[in-house]
Amino acid sequence: FDAAAADAARARNAQLTKPPGALGRLEDLAIWYAGWRGDPRPRINRPQVLVFAGNHGVTAQGVSAFPAEVTAQMVANFKAGGAAINQLAQAFGATMAVVALDLDTPTRDFTAGAAMTEDDLVAALAAGWEAVDPQADLLVTGEMGIGNTTVAAALACALFGGGAGDWTGRGTGVSDEGLALKTRVVAAGLALHGDLTGDPLEALRCLGGRELAAMAGAIARARVLRVPVILDGFICTAAAAVLECAEEGALGHCVAGHVSAEGAHGALLARLGKKPLLDLGLRLGEGSGAALAIAVMQGAVACHSGMVTFEEAGVSGG
Amino acid sequence: FDAAAADAARARNAQLTKPPGALGRLEDLAIWYAGWRGDPRPRINRPQVLVFAGNHGVTAQGVSAFPAEVTAQMVANFKAGGAAINQLAQAFGATMAVVALDLDTPTRDFTAGAAMTEDDLVAALAAGWEAVDPQADLLVTGEMGIGNTTVAAALACALFGGGAGDWTGRGTGVSDEGLALKTRVVAAGLALHGDLTGDPLEALRCLGGRELAAMAGAIARARVLRVPVILDGFICTAAAAVLECAEEGALGHCVAGHVSAEGAHGALLARLGKKPLLDLGLRLGEGSGAALAIAVMQGAVACHSGMVTFEEAGVSGG
Repeated sequence: FDAAAADAARARNAQLTKPPGALGRLEDLAIWYAGWRGDPRPRINRPQVLVFAGNHGVTAQGVSAFPAEVTAQMVANFKAGGAAINQLAQAFGATMAVVALDLDTPTRDFTAGAAMTEDDLVAALAAGWEAVDPQADLLVTGEMGIGNTTVAAALACALFGGGAGDWTGRGTGVSDEGLALKTRVVAAGLALHGDLTGDPLEALRCLGGRELAAMAGAIARARVLRVPVILDGFICTAAAAVLECAEEGALGHCVAGHVSAEGAHGALLARLGKKPLLDLGLRLGEGSGAALAIAVMQGAVACHSGMVTFEEAGVSGG
Repeated sequence: FDAAAADAARARNAQLTKPPGALGRLEDLAIWYAGWRGDPRPRINRPQVLVFAGNHGVTAQGVSAFPAEVTAQMVANFKAGGAAINQLAQAFGATMAVVALDLDTPTRDFTAGAAMTEDDLVAALAAGWEAVDPQADLLVTGEMGIGNTTVAAALACALFGGGAGDWTGRGTGVSDEGLALKTRVVAAGLALHGDLTGDPLEALRCLGGRELAAMAGAIARARVLRVPVILDGFICTAAAAVLECAEEGALGHCVAGHVSAEGAHGALLARLGKKPLLDLGLRLGEGSGAALAIAVMQGAVACHSGMVTFEEAGVSGG
């Protein structure tokens, strides 16, 4: 983070042709973005959307409203351009890449053992790390993986404590009965693996999944590249939380794109101190809520860098 | 409103490759938009931003943090492309037009008499009516007018009742003392003109202003043209409320783009039954919050019309 660039952006913001503070959060976003980019008058030219896909052994427990083969079918849909995230990426001028992670080899059912080996975890983190375009100037990480709200609930519970019921939600739309089953499955996973609160990467290995690890790897890489990140929904945020739990402040380059309708997302964002930009009832994943928030970032940065000052415009100050 | 097109859009929505309801409000927005456009698979190709500017005699009472000449200076800034609304319109591909309404002849100070004559009112309504591009497929109406939060507060209070203090806010940023003065000025205007709750157009004439009347005229024209409208902040919403008070349901073609930080905007939207799309602390006017919400509409319609169905994609249903 370049504090001098942020200070210069703050000074510029104070001179723009608007009453002080009248653009609300857009002003804070533009200054934050300027600081991470090291440029007091930045532009967003190359947003990138990354969608990671993985399969989960825990689907054998019947935790999802959709069958596991939908993960691969949706990857084909992403590649063909037919999904929601394709439309949103295109609407806001983002490049999009889809990374399918060993779909034919689901992770192990976390109620029977660790979801991933250490090699699996490292490979997935590396896949995320490598997928980030070094030329990107804004990153959205999204995911697809039947069963992964169950996985994210278990991971969030391992990281932050509380009961399984506090973190488990309806995902793609399970019934009351399905929700009760999911909660029992999450509780069983937590019981098997014991207390992991002090070891977030081990929690990710035992309870997470490849697409979650890949998102964490991509978000970490973006930090190194000083690429601001827009977090998506519950699963993306749970993956990001691993980094924050491992090192406080690790998500300083991230903004919460939206709060999803998935039950515990708001609570998870609150734990991370992130106030969402949008609240439109989305619960799709794929990066969709964050992709919509690309437009908010574009608006913020366009105003900041494109507006003229009171002096340039010959407008009388207040 | 074309109920058949909306029904067809609803049927299409149910087949798209996502869990039912997973795009939250975006789904409702797309179906609503389809109904107004009479097209079950619409596109947004030609959004229009209209900014109306007017001057207000009531500024003589010292109600604004900025001098009245700023209205004309900001109109020049809009025309030169230097204001926030220019950046937002450009960012989201909207055309923008600025209509300055008799800036050299401010309305009459409403604490001394009716703000406008009947001729003034009709001319301003007509200016708004005529400014709408018949080829537009989405409309944002914005405004500029030093003193116009005072005017909007008086108008809202005349339309909906309550005390002057319920509707008066800090506008461009007046002090506690300034706020107390604004509230007294609003109360004085209401006292002078008496009960206008049954006559919304007369309330607009006595307490409103040219840019408010023009926004009302534009919003009414958009209804005739079946162009959906995104409402902006407090002043735009007060102008729109005149139509709703004149005829219930008159704002069915309008969505609230955002809730502004101007104190009473949330209450005004609640009176109109409109839930805002964005809540980012903006309080600039110019159409800025609504222009940002163009992107939300674009995202909603892009998903609806661009996504493929489960059958087309060969994806298994839930």
